[in-house]
Amino acid sequence: MKLAIYGYGNLGRGVEAAIRQNGDAELVGIFTRRDPKTVVSKTGASVFAADEILANKNAIDAVILCGGSATDLPILTPMLARHFSVIDSFDTHARIPEHFAAVDAAAKAGGTLALISCGWDPGLFSLNRLYASAILPDGKDETFWGRGVSQGHSDAIRRIPGVLDARQYTVPIESALQSVRAGEKPTLSARQKHLRECYVVAAPGADKAAIENAIKTMPNYFADYDTSVTFITAEEMRANHSELPHGGVVIRSGKTGLDGEHRHTIEYSLKLDSNPEFTASVLVAYARAICRMAQRGETGCRTVFDIAPADLSPLSGEALRKTML
Amino acid sequence: MKLAIYGYGNLGRGVEAAIRQNGDAELVGIFTRRDPKTVVSKTGASVFAADEILANKNAIDAVILCGGSATDLPILTPMLARHFSVIDSFDTHARIPEHFAAVDAAAKAGGTLALISCGWDPGLFSLNRLYASAILPDGKDETFWGRGVSQGHSDAIRRIPGVLDARQYTVPIESALQSVRAGEKPTLSARQKHLRECYVVAAPGADKAAIENAIKTMPNYFADYDTSVTFITAEEMRANHSELPHGGVVIRSGKTGLDGEHRHTIEYSLKLDSNPEFTASVLVAYARAICRMAQRGETGCRTVFDIAPADLSPLSGEALRKTML
Repeated sequence: MKLAIYGYGNLGRGVEAAIRQNGDAELVGIFTRRDPKTVVSKTGASVFAADEILANKNAIDAVILCGGSATDLPILTPMLARHFSVIDSFDTHARIPEHFAAVDAAAKAGGTLALISCGWDPGLFSLNRLYASAILPDGKDETFWGRGVSQGHSDAIRRIPGVLDARQYTVPIESALQSVRAGEKPTLSARQKHLRECYVVAAPGADKAAIENAIKTMPNYFADYDTSVTFITAEEMRANHSELPHGGVVIRSGKTGLDGEHRHTIEYSLKLDSNPEFTASVLVAYARAICRMAQRGETGCRTVFDIAPADLSPLSGEALRKTML
Repeated sequence: MKLAIYGYGNLGRGVEAAIRQNGDAELVGIFTRRDPKTVVSKTGASVFAADEILANKNAIDAVILCGGSATDLPILTPMLARHFSVIDSFDTHARIPEHFAAVDAAAKAGGTLALISCGWDPGLFSLNRLYASAILPDGKDETFWGRGVSQGHSDAIRRIPGVLDARQYTVPIESALQSVRAGEKPTLSARQKHLRECYVVAAPGADKAAIENAIKTMPNYFADYDTSVTFITAEEMRANHSELPHGGVVIRSGKTGLDGEHRHTIEYSLKLDSNPEFTASVLVAYARAICRMAQRGETGCRTVFDIAPADLSPLSGEALRKTML
């Protein structure tokens, strides 16, 4: 499969690395909205200006979009889906239905196939919510995130006056996790599920008390959580907080039997050293499926719910049945 | 979906209970090879002789086979697939390719759709091996089973002279689990992964030392494992070992990045109070997919690898995207 990367930040670099791990994948090029002369690929891949992508149409089986969900993907995914099979990792859960509709219309008009919201949440976690709820209809699931860096929350802190740099870790609360695991089906508020741990580099002379107060009272992001704020130096930030780890867990507990007498727990968990590289690895596996399905003539928009697992693997159906079933 | 149960042991009773948890499922009847007058359904379902099933062909969307893998399913699944869409839980891993071929030929000849080897292993565990290996190609996975009752091993002990009853628990070895979880990719022998814990009721006057020796030296079943044997009374067996719990975990750890510098762990675990009831719940969810796919005109044999997750859920694609993605 001949893949193109559109957008070259952390996620794009992750896709570039993931493509090298898959023998059947080839990177046609990196397409960037920056000046391509200023962008250097560590693997020596060709770098093109974004608007050159149409000229490379015949060389590309699928485009992996590596832009942000807030403003990039709602425009870019439908735009590119008119010409290419595309995969994105759109992760604004509440806006998925409208993004799906826009991409579906574009892909149908273009006779292409698109996959949106692919990654681990939305993505693998969504799959596990679906599988577990279909199997244990009399049950309840909970998703916990972390311990990991939330880039949205980190950015929100950086916008506070006097903040030079910030990193926010989302931390699941162990007692809540244990209660869900034990099948107690607790009703949990946001505050009862996660802590927010913030590391902040303040500008010299900045009012740290004011910064701490601005963080802890910030609506949506922090006000509904127990939040800790620790001021550190720029050196400490570089030394201890330069990575982007993440992870989390989806747990469903449910009952079976004529009187609900038996209890079951299904748990799926991820521990990731690099959120963007792992997300990129999911995107490349799903790119394989999209290329195959497009070759079978499918068009329109899909999500991970619509993809048969066998299409993700380089192995044949026969080999899969023999080695993995 | 109108479902029939063929075979009425622990698994068949589990399917009967699971059907009641799914509003879109209806139990047409239980088909048994015993005298149907001797079989009583706890839910008041109709019980028929096995050979009456063909006469009910038009009333049945799919047949869930609840027989054993050793001798029942290799005969029954192809036989019924000539006339019905069928789902079985064939679990002899080494013989899956030949079972698949036989069922595929029968289903194609009959114009029906079949799903084999559906449950949790093979089944949900297989899915997780596939998803995880497609996403982390530079990695390794391990499957651990238990703590849970192995019916095959329990039966093997019961065949030893002087044994009245027996229950064997397969127990994962915690240190091996932790090593795999830590991404150490150990090479583990059978003995290093699982313990075998046996509870035995001996006949009055039986030679317990001889029984213990016969168990511990039994090839394939016990000789390659550290095995403990505890003699108990029939009352203790009834009081403490009458349930069929099981479970286990699939763990894959792998690396990403240009130099494999980031490590990731994907873990899927099940804790089941009742192995047959949980397996039955998986069968009923997959029966929904098979009924839908058969209605779309698909024929031949499938495995869980071939089923798009959305087909398992009673919810529409739109509802799934809105609530679970």
